[in-house]
Parts: sequence; C-alpha cells; structure tokens
Amino acid sequence: MRVKNKKFSTIWIDNREVKIIDQTKLPFEFKVQKLKSLNDFCTAISDMKVRGAPLIGVTAALGFAKSIEQNSSTLNIKKCYQKLLKTRPTAINLKWALDTIKKKLLKTIPSKRASLAFKLANLIRDDDIENCKQIGINGLKIIEQIYNKKKKPVNILTHCNAGWLATVDYGTALSPIFCANHAQIPLHVWVDETRPRNQGALLTSWELKNEKIPHTVIVDNAGGHLMQNGKVDLCLVGSDRTAMNGDVCNKIGTYLKAISAYENNIPFYVALPTSTIDRNLKNGSHIPIEIRDGKELSDLIFEKSKKLSTGRIYKNKTKTFNPAFDVTPSKFITALITENGICKADFSSIQRNLKV
Amino acid sequence: MRVKNKKFSTIWIDNREVKIIDQTKLPFEFKVQKLKSLNDFCTAISDMKVRGAPLIGVTAALGFAKSIEQNSSTLNIKKCYQKLLKTRPTAINLKWALDTIKKKLLKTIPSKRASLAFKLANLIRDDDIENCKQIGINGLKIIEQIYNKKKKPVNILTHCNAGWLATVDYGTALSPIFCANHAQIPLHVWVDETRPRNQGALLTSWELKNEKIPHTVIVDNAGGHLMQNGKVDLCLVGSDRTAMNGDVCNKIGTYLKAISAYENNIPFYVALPTSTIDRNLKNGSHIPIEIRDGKELSDLIFEKSKKLSTGRIYKNKTKTFNPAFDVTPSKFITALITENGICKADFSSIQRNLKV
Repeated sequence: MRVKNKKFSTIWIDNREVKIIDQTKLPFEFKVQKLKSLNDFCTAISDMKVRGAPLIGVTAALGFAKSIEQNSSTLNIKKCYQKLLKTRPTAINLKWALDTIKKKLLKTIPSKRASLAFKLANLIRDDDIENCKQIGINGLKIIEQIYNKKKKPVNILTHCNAGWLATVDYGTALSPIFCANHAQIPLHVWVDETRPRNQGALLTSWELKNEKIPHTVIVDNAGGHLMQNGKVDLCLVGSDRTAMNGDVCNKIGTYLKAISAYENNIPFYVALPTSTIDRNLKNGSHIPIEIRDGKELSDLIFEKSKKLSTGRIYKNKTKTFNPAFDVTPSKFITALITENGICKADFSSIQRNLKV
Repeated sequence: MRVKNKKFSTIWIDNREVKIIDQTKLPFEFKVQKLKSLNDFCTAISDMKVRGAPLIGVTAALGFAKSIEQNSSTLNIKKCYQKLLKTRPTAINLKWALDTIKKKLLKTIPSKRASLAFKLANLIRDDDIENCKQIGINGLKIIEQIYNKKKKPVNILTHCNAGWLATVDYGTALSPIFCANHAQIPLHVWVDETRPRNQGALLTSWELKNEKIPHTVIVDNAGGHLMQNGKVDLCLVGSDRTAMNGDVCNKIGTYLKAISAYENNIPFYVALPTSTIDRNLKNGSHIPIEIRDGKELSDLIFEKSKKLSTGRIYKNKTKTFNPAFDVTPSKFITALITENGICKADFSSIQRNLKV
C-alpha cells in the first residue's frame, strides 16, 4: 500500500538486509528499521514493532533464514525455532511458518540450508501478499451486496488493526474495504480504538486516512450502541488463530462486538488467510491466550507540542490484568473470508475451503 | 466515605458555602472547590467536576438554592431552571431535582424562597445519602447468597464509577460492595477502565483502594473474555436514567457487558436510587444520549515524574464520535436494586417498588 504516494510493504529484503516499518511509533513517526540478529527479530515480534498474525509469521520466517545464514547447524535450527516460537503464543501463523521451514531444513545438507531458508521465507511472504489480495476480492462481494441493497454508504465496524500493517500487504479485514473503495463503493468505517494498545485509533485510522476512506474512531465501549441504533451494516475483523469448528481467536474485545452484532442481526465476518487456521484444533477453548504486561494499559505515548513522550494515565501501583485475545464462538460468526472464498464457520465448510 | 481516614462526602455546605471535591484531577490530586455563582455550578456539572446521576441532581439543587439566595425573583427561578437543566441531558435526576424545587418555589413568596430552596436541596441531599446506604443493605443480600454458595471470594465486575463519588455518599453499584466488605465477605472487583474518561481506572479503583478492597483494572474489551472463563460471579452497575419497563441508560459500554453476562448466565444487577427512574418513560428508546466532545478520547491527563500535564494520544485531526451513554434493554437485567428493595426490571415490579 502507499505511504505518502510511495509503495511500501511491512517487511522486505533490501540488499540482503531485512527491513521493517517500526509500528510502535506510528502514526506519529514513520521509521524503517533493519533486523540483523536473531535477537532483533525476536524483540521486534515481542515488543510489537511488527504485529498481526500473518506478519508475525513472515517475520519469524525471515528471522529463521537470517540466523541460518550465520549458522546453518542442526543445533542452531533447533535453537532458532524455540526462540522464535516463544516470542508470542497465540497467533498460529508463527508456529506454522516455523514448522514448515524447520522440517525442510532438517532434510537438507547444511551448506544448502541458508538459501533454502530464504527461498521458503520469501515464498511465505509472497503467498501472504497474494492471499490477502484474494481475501479483498472475495470480501468485496459482501460489501457490494450491502451497497446494492442500501444505495447509501456502507457502514463497516472493525476492531484492532487487520490492515496491511498486520500482514505483508493489503491486510485481512481491511483488504475488502480497500477493494470496495477502489471499486468506488461509498464507505464509512467505524474504527474501534482497541485498548490497551489503541491499534485501531493509531494504525487502522492511519491506513484509512492514507487511502482517503471516510472513518471515525470510537471507544471500544461504543460499538454496541451504534449497532442498536442502525449505524453499522457490517462487522469485519481479522483472526490470530482459527479453530476447525470456526471459533476465532482475535484481539481482546472481538467477542463483545460479535455477540452484539448477533443480538442486532448485523453480519459479522472474519477475514483470514488459511495460514491462521489451526488444523489440529477442534475448537477455540484450548487456545493459549497471551497475557501481556499491565503497563500497556497505563503507560502511553503522548504527543505534545509536536514532541513524543511517554506518561502514565493511571495512578502508580494500580493493579491491572491484560489478556491480549479472546475467543469468539463460531455461532456468532456469519462466515469466514479466506483466500479460497467465503465459507461458513463450521467444520465441514472449513475443510472444503482448505481443499480448494 | 473516608479519604485518608477523614470522612468526606462529594458535596456539602460549610459556613453557608457549597463545596465539592473536584473529580477531574482524581486520583492524582485531591482538591476541594467552592461553588459560588450559578456559572460555577453549571460548569462543575458540564465539565464533570461532579458527575454521576445522583450527584448531578444534588449539585443542581444546591446551585438552584444558591442562585435564589442572590435573586429570588420568578424570572430568576425560570432562568436558573433552564440553565441548570441544559448542563447534561441524559441523567434524569437533574430534571427531577429541578422540577421538585421549581414547583414549590413558584408557590412561595419571594422573601421565603431562599430558605425553602436550601431546605429542599438539603432534603434531596439527605435522601440521596439515606437511599444509597439502603441500596447497600439491599444489595448485600445478593453478594451474600453468592458467597454462601461459592465459599470463595466473590468476583464482581463493575463499569464506570457508581461509587460514592457518583452520589453524595456510599454510592449505588459500589454501596453493596462496601457493605459486603464491612460484613467481611471476601471480594475481588474487576474494574472496567471505562473509556473515554477512565472513571473506572481513576475513580472506582481509588475508592476501592481507600476501602482496602482487592480489585484489578481491566480494559473495557476484557470483560467478555473473563465472563466466558468463569472469572465473574456478578455484574453490578449504576443507572443514569431508568425507564418504567426496566430499560437502563448508563455509561457507554454497559450494554456490551449486559449482553455478555446474559450470554454467559452471569447475574447482571443495576443499583439505583428511585430518583433515576423516569416515571414518564415507557421504555429506553427515547432517552436523549449525550454526545460529548471527541477530545475526551484523545486528550488525556498523564503523570510523569510526579507532575501532571495533558497530552494527545491520537494523531492530530483524527475524527472521533463520543456518545456518553447507551441503553441496556430490560431483558438483559437480572434485577434492579433500589432503596426500596430488589425488584425485577419490568413495569409492574417497578411500580410496586416505587410505592413501597
């Protein structure tokens, strides 16, 4: 996607160096960072300089390759795998990418491992771009249908950031929105602020602004009220891990929006590349939910007189609890949008979708 | 209630002067402010130096009296009434208090109006204290029942601040919690942060800390996840306006918690003095929802190196929408707790409760 008319993706290789956009300073500062050591990659993931399930997967894959370039031993393959796997527990793409690469590397002689690792990581990166693009094309139909019926701007509510910043390019939940905007369907997006890290207010609104798509930021508390009052035509969110029965684990608060949409007869779609589907997971009840530092609630970045600093919005020693994800049971989900098409959130539909 | 072992209420008369605790700086600074002119009272309400439906009503009543003390003409009665009524549109206590006083003043000769106005305002204030105390006693039974069954600390989730700071003393939703703590029932309170103004993280947690009640602040997004996972035994919130059918208008986000509690079979109680019941309102669909300045989302007070200042957490020019309340349909409410007892959220039960 474009940033000030220059084309960017979230992670790329430039002259044998891996570069990322540091998302922790966005939208205040746009900074590109080089990732050199395995440590750089691990910190980028755990500190959320890169975030979003698909992007985490690609970053881990490139980190794996970068480390194998320096040391292609079997011992290092195992060390790398463990270290990258530990960075964040919930998104399944991370494990999926690491498993794929590890398995193939172990079958290859050390001297050919580095080039294979880069080849595989780049393949995962290219696939992610292609899949997200296709999610946009598939999801466009849903927005088109609503517009053809309504003949007025379509109001879409989204939670957190499932835009191009959460993937390599195009995004998941925002990909159909970008497509619809391209197709000149009038849109308005309600952007959930998404506490505690405010990815909606900071990242999603920045993406939508760059694409000139009308949008309004609301607190996470407001979505139910808007749905009750006919202000939302469609909810569109992403997924960090999807169970085979259609349960979706996504950013904390997704569940509250899903039950509210259900209660108010508003379609609730989840857009995801099939890389977020955990083939071994029967339902969402056993997904490990990452508990992050409570300081994420209280310590925020502020802009004042064009300068950035951090400050505390709670009284010191306020006790907090910070689960990062929740699970939305499939019964609240209208359908899933994958690169293979739109499918119901149930076992047999997902199985068919995976086989396309 | 106590602040550092000294007894306080939120508004009181001291040597013919009306004083309040300025709640906009809490918990960082504890400041008492005198309200002198009608303007002082109006600003205190609209800027939320005092907030919470019951306290707004009492503040308006005392502001009315203070202004009549200076000018007891019929013209001033009408001017005062209009000016105070406009400060905040959603809480019904404001209108109820102003209507009560205006009606009686107009039947009284000007020379006796000031003393009557103060008498009435003080009566409203005293009644609020008594009613909130009684809500605590009535609500205690619910917590006791849960504890007797569970024999482990009772986990209560509350939204916004419906503590003593929202009333003159004792509070509404927190009053049963204070009572239960007094009765040595082990408790733990999940405190919704309550964006955009963070009254949960700032005011409720401060009240609970002063009373040494274990509590944890969570983002508004987290409540559904906790309810799904058996971490909430009871939800307890306040009300800004209650319809005769039991629909409850309360701080934005209450609705999302109510539907989540319903979905997860968790009792959801609303504690309110009957002064928040709008006798003329058949249901909640026509309650005017206050839309507040969008800057409440982006401009926050933060503490840094023990100094307070304000800063912006969003990028400049981010468009926001800020409805302050939502309506929870009665079907999601287990029961109401008033000073007259516990009653179902339906027309005939409320009518009976009002006649006690």
